[in-house]
Amino acid sequence: MSDTRPLGFFDSGLGGLTVLRAIRRKFPNENLVYLGDTARLPYGTKSSDTIRRYTDQSVRALLNFDVKAIIVACNSASTAVLDSKLPGASRIESAVPVYNVIEPGAEVALKASGTKRIGVLATRATVSSGAYAKAITTLNQDATVFQHPAPLLVPLVEEGWETDPLTNLVIYRYLAPLMAQSIDTLILGCTHYPALREGIQKVTGNGIALVDSAQAIAEILYRDFKSGALKPNDAGAKGRISLYATDASPTMDSTAKRLMGDPELPSFEHCDL
Amino acid sequence: MSDTRPLGFFDSGLGGLTVLRAIRRKFPNENLVYLGDTARLPYGTKSSDTIRRYTDQSVRALLNFDVKAIIVACNSASTAVLDSKLPGASRIESAVPVYNVIEPGAEVALKASGTKRIGVLATRATVSSGAYAKAITTLNQDATVFQHPAPLLVPLVEEGWETDPLTNLVIYRYLAPLMAQSIDTLILGCTHYPALREGIQKVTGNGIALVDSAQAIAEILYRDFKSGALKPNDAGAKGRISLYATDASPTMDSTAKRLMGDPELPSFEHCDL
Repeated sequence: MSDTRPLGFFDSGLGGLTVLRAIRRKFPNENLVYLGDTARLPYGTKSSDTIRRYTDQSVRALLNFDVKAIIVACNSASTAVLDSKLPGASRIESAVPVYNVIEPGAEVALKASGTKRIGVLATRATVSSGAYAKAITTLNQDATVFQHPAPLLVPLVEEGWETDPLTNLVIYRYLAPLMAQSIDTLILGCTHYPALREGIQKVTGNGIALVDSAQAIAEILYRDFKSGALKPNDAGAKGRISLYATDASPTMDSTAKRLMGDPELPSFEHCDL
Repeated sequence: MSDTRPLGFFDSGLGGLTVLRAIRRKFPNENLVYLGDTARLPYGTKSSDTIRRYTDQSVRALLNFDVKAIIVACNSASTAVLDSKLPGASRIESAVPVYNVIEPGAEVALKASGTKRIGVLATRATVSSGAYAKAITTLNQDATVFQHPAPLLVPLVEEGWETDPLTNLVIYRYLAPLMAQSIDTLILGCTHYPALREGIQKVTGNGIALVDSAQAIAEILYRDFKSGALKPNDAGAKGRISLYATDASPTMDSTAKRLMGDPELPSFEHCDL
């Protein structure tokens, strides 16, 4: 019962490639299609209406590639997918399952947490949606969630200052109020933040578990492949990767190769939304 | 020979309101229409093709308001307007004059500079377009221009950390290579940067003249009103301000009031592009 159709990934930019990499490592047979809305990034500063409209367009674009499932690899866009499940909200319709990264992150964080005091570092849009808090407390009413928006972290990563002392100062500034709440688990609620994992762990110390979206969605897909909810591609060969973006810049291909750790990665092709 | 038609302003976001304010102060009679493409900001990280396409759409939207001139108040978008003057490039067509902020900035900087060693702090897009260097050396072949991209400054302003020691560290990091070139004038090549004027002047010391887009375009409009190239609105009453944006967020109105220093400012209305 093999299903050779690709898994479709959507992100506002290139950060979602950290998710693509995790899936590639865990399921090397799968064909993967990635779409980055690089012309309109970042989503993290936009209103929920606009994020929902853009995400809807991207999901429809991915359906044209005959995907078997769609992974919304962007936290801010994931809030739009979650919202669309609420009654009265404009629904993102799709014939195939649409995964978000919020619910998997919530699930994995609850598993990692002993005290159920969980911190969330995310974009303004993700924080003000309250999506992680809702997802976590829906699974466990006794959990307490502390959030902090961290809008400077994405530009710091894009500047290439991941290990810069200045970046550590910014991380400390954002984390101090969360640490003061005695959290024992921290969700890195944006696909760019794993690039800062080392600096973040330095500030939190080893007593706090870090949960990132890539690791969380990989676990959930593993479960769904196992249960049969999703059919894997059983072809022996290595799956094919295709990359699309709404805006192409000369440095994108090299950034993608670096983020994926794969020098063989194909170039981005242009895709209008 | 009064012309009551409004002046149209375009910016990728709200930063251009610093330009609107300067024009409002200098020409209080003029009716002003402002359009911020807040849904798709920032432009400073996008490719020149995409910036040109978006700017073209915005210029056309402003023409629907029957404006007598258009001021592209965003440096990154201004590079697209300048590019469109090059043969072979897709032209931004308009029946009314379209002002950019690059050429006025170049002119005012050359007037301010004794040594003609001029620094430019700007977004990645503006720096890689080389627009300031071209504009300055076209006016004065002996001038030397030193540029540095400063992608963190906009998010730092948006975080509200204008006077934060951390921001001064980032400013110092960006300015050090320009200072090492013994510049005597610095162009603040993004409409957000005037908010950091104090911190920037602290790093440069008083020996370096700071030139910002708002001040530069106000000087050029003054000249064109005087020469008759543009007809002023001679009505005695205070001009009307209308604000439009492609994405509305709850904090936008208060940010606009703060940037304009005007608590009477009307609310933003939605405008699709």
